[in-house]
Order: sequence, then structure tokens, then C-alpha cells
Amino acid sequence: MRIALLGGTGDIGQGLALRWGFDTGHEVLIGSRDPERARTKAAEYETELDSRGVETDLKGFANEMAADRADVVVLSVPAYHLVDTIESVADRLDEETILVTPAVGMKRDEAGLHYNPPSAGSVSALAADAAPAGVPVVGAFHNLPAGGLADLDKEFAWDTLVFGDDEDAKGIVADLAREIEGLRPLDAGGLANAPEVEAITPLLVNIARENDGLHDLGVRFQ
Amino acid sequence: MRIALLGGTGDIGQGLALRWGFDTGHEVLIGSRDPERARTKAAEYETELDSRGVETDLKGFANEMAADRADVVVLSVPAYHLVDTIESVADRLDEETILVTPAVGMKRDEAGLHYNPPSAGSVSALAADAAPAGVPVVGAFHNLPAGGLADLDKEFAWDTLVFGDDEDAKGIVADLAREIEGLRPLDAGGLANAPEVEAITPLLVNIARENDGLHDLGVRFQ
Repeated sequence: MRIALLGGTGDIGQGLALRWGFDTGHEVLIGSRDPERARTKAAEYETELDSRGVETDLKGFANEMAADRADVVVLSVPAYHLVDTIESVADRLDEETILVTPAVGMKRDEAGLHYNPPSAGSVSALAADAAPAGVPVVGAFHNLPAGGLADLDKEFAWDTLVFGDDEDAKGIVADLAREIEGLRPLDAGGLANAPEVEAITPLLVNIARENDGLHDLGVRFQ
Repeated sequence: MRIALLGGTGDIGQGLALRWGFDTGHEVLIGSRDPERARTKAAEYETELDSRGVETDLKGFANEMAADRADVVVLSVPAYHLVDTIESVADRLDEETILVTPAVGMKRDEAGLHYNPPSAGSVSALAADAAPAGVPVVGAFHNLPAGGLADLDKEFAWDTLVFGDDEDAKGIVADLAREIEGLRPLDAGGLANAPEVEAITPLLVNIARENDGLHDLGVRFQ
């Protein structure tokens, strides 16, 4: 499978690129608004994987080019860039392409971080509204600590909640998650269930801030 | 310590009563609007604990009487009874009493259960608004599966997120949580952080509904 990580130069994109590179044979394309930056980061990830004896062929592209070539397009961009990123690649997507959103909208006050959903109800609903008709949108990879994910020495047992209204698309994304060692995909139902999933991300940051010795937290349902 | 479980005849009240009865020497008072029902359930819990060789002295009372005698008052009632329960016991509380709220407001649609906060911003904020001045309110025990908690044969490793604006009160409630075998209290900060904690409860129900073999789910941050 060919996976494009738009905004793949950012922290969650880096984590997913390294884990899919390390644990799977999928072809990973790093996308960025700046193709030069995409190529630089792709080379960095390749060096990291090569140092661990994994030969990969990670390439960097402008977001549009990465999306054009991919079966699965992960929108690993901040929430406030989500809509313009989707719009910038919209004419490269078709009904065979799956859009995946791990983005969460947050705001900070003196108590900590808080979930800050857009008027669409959730960031994932915003992505679904912006996606071209017929292109399935799946929510996944929201509650993963970017630092821990990108540290290939770190072992973990984390869940990722996968949701969306297209069952086939959801299944494909769940399979991609399952191929990452230590990651368990759980079905969280339809897109309407997005807010409760997205809201966990600021909570993870607050818990890490308030409790000594806890950092790079993920979540496990048991 | 003397702990009153108002609405202690309900499912989360039952779980907490049995676990504190089994794992600790604290005196647990079962409260209900109907004192006869409180006494019947207290006798049931006592029989269950007795069958496991634990001698306890569980008593049932009207909510007002239970609150009057307690150091810690747990509001184990549905969210829509929270305010009237607090009001009914308000003149029995003083600044030495800690109010604990595990209540969550939820609504159901075809996709599943959803978090449904009141206009106060969270159910815990609603409790804090209703509490007499000077009585500290702590949020805890939101994300525990009542069935699993009440089944003393079940071993678990769950977290409970404890939050509130009174650090001393929060510490006392965290200690009470820690005394339950398998339960780890985590500090989730101030009362303003309540929504993200409360929102996990409907998510646990949705995950159990969508995934075969998963039920009675709690959560662990790791």
C-alpha cells in the first residue's frame, strides 16, 4: 500500500513514517507544502531506519504530488491547516483514496489544554465536510504521543481509536494501525463519535503535566 | 475514614462500596432517598463481603443521614439527580466534608453515546456550583465500569482521573482511590479539566459496543 503523510515533516507524521518504515513494507511518501523540506525530512527518516538495518525508500514531495500517488492520505497537519490542506490536494483524490485525520483542535488556559471543537462538531467532521464527495474520511491516530511514537527504541501497548462512516475504509486504516508493533486499533463507531476521541488528546497532555514520571502517554482500554 | 455513598444502591455505588469494603477498613455508609432500600442494599453488600471472609459493618441510611456522618460524600447518582441530591444534603455538609462527583451527562443517538455537558461546562462544575460555599468538590471515579468494579473476582489495572481546585481534598480522594487494589489515581488538574475526563465515559460504552470481546472497560494511561 502507498501511504502519503501530508505534513509528514511534523511530529506525528515523523512517528508514523518511522513506525510504518520500521514495521511494514508499505511505501511511505512524505508530503509538505515545501517539497525541499519534505525531501530533507524523508532523508532523515531514511538515515534513522538505515541505522537500524531497515532498507526503505522514503521519498519527499509537495503535498499535492504525495496525495496524487497514494492509496491512503494521512492529514498529519495541525487542525487549523486541515481544511486548506484538503483543498490543496482535492483534485488529486478519488473514491479509491482514503483520507485519514489524526488532527485535534485544542486551546490552552491556566488549568491546562482543552478540547476546542470547531462548529462542525469535531475536527474529523470538518475534514469530512471539506473532502470531495465520495472520498471516505477515517479518524485515527489521535491519541498517540508523537515523541514516543518516533522513538524506535520505545516499546508500547497503545490503542488507537478508528472511526468513520465507511466500514471498508475504516477496516483498511485499522489494518495499517495493527501492523505497527504494539498498536491496537479499536473501532469507535461512526464519525459522530469523533468528539470523545479527539478530546482525549489534551487530557493526555494534562495528565503528563500533573503527574511526575508520566510523559509520552498513550491510552489503553482494558 | 467515613465514606457516604449517596445513591449507593446504584451500580457505581455498589462497586465502590464492595471494593472499599473488601480492600480497606473504611466505614462505608450507603445512602438512598429511600432509607429502607439503602438498608436492604447495605445488607446485600455485607452478605457478599461476608461470603468472602470480610467482616464489615455496612449501614444504610437516608442520604441526609449518611452525608451528615461522613468525611467524604460520594455523589454516586445520575447526573440529572446531582443538583437536587446536593441540595437535599447541603445543610449536613461543612468545610471538613469533601464532595466527590463521578457523575457524567450523556445522550444517545444512532451512532452511540455522547458526552452531553450542562451549560455549566461540565457535570463537575454543576456540582461545584450547587455545593455550599467552602465545601470542596473533587471529580473522581468517572471512567470505571460499574459491573467490573462490583465483581470482586475481577482483577484490573485501571486509572481514575482525580481533579479539583482544592489540592488537599484531591489528595484525600486520590488516597481513597489508591487503596482499591488495581486502581491508580492520576491527577488531572483543576475543575476546569473536567469535560475531557467526563467525556471518556460514553466512549468506553461505544468501544464496548463496537468491538467483540471487549466489555466492562476501564482506561489506563501508559
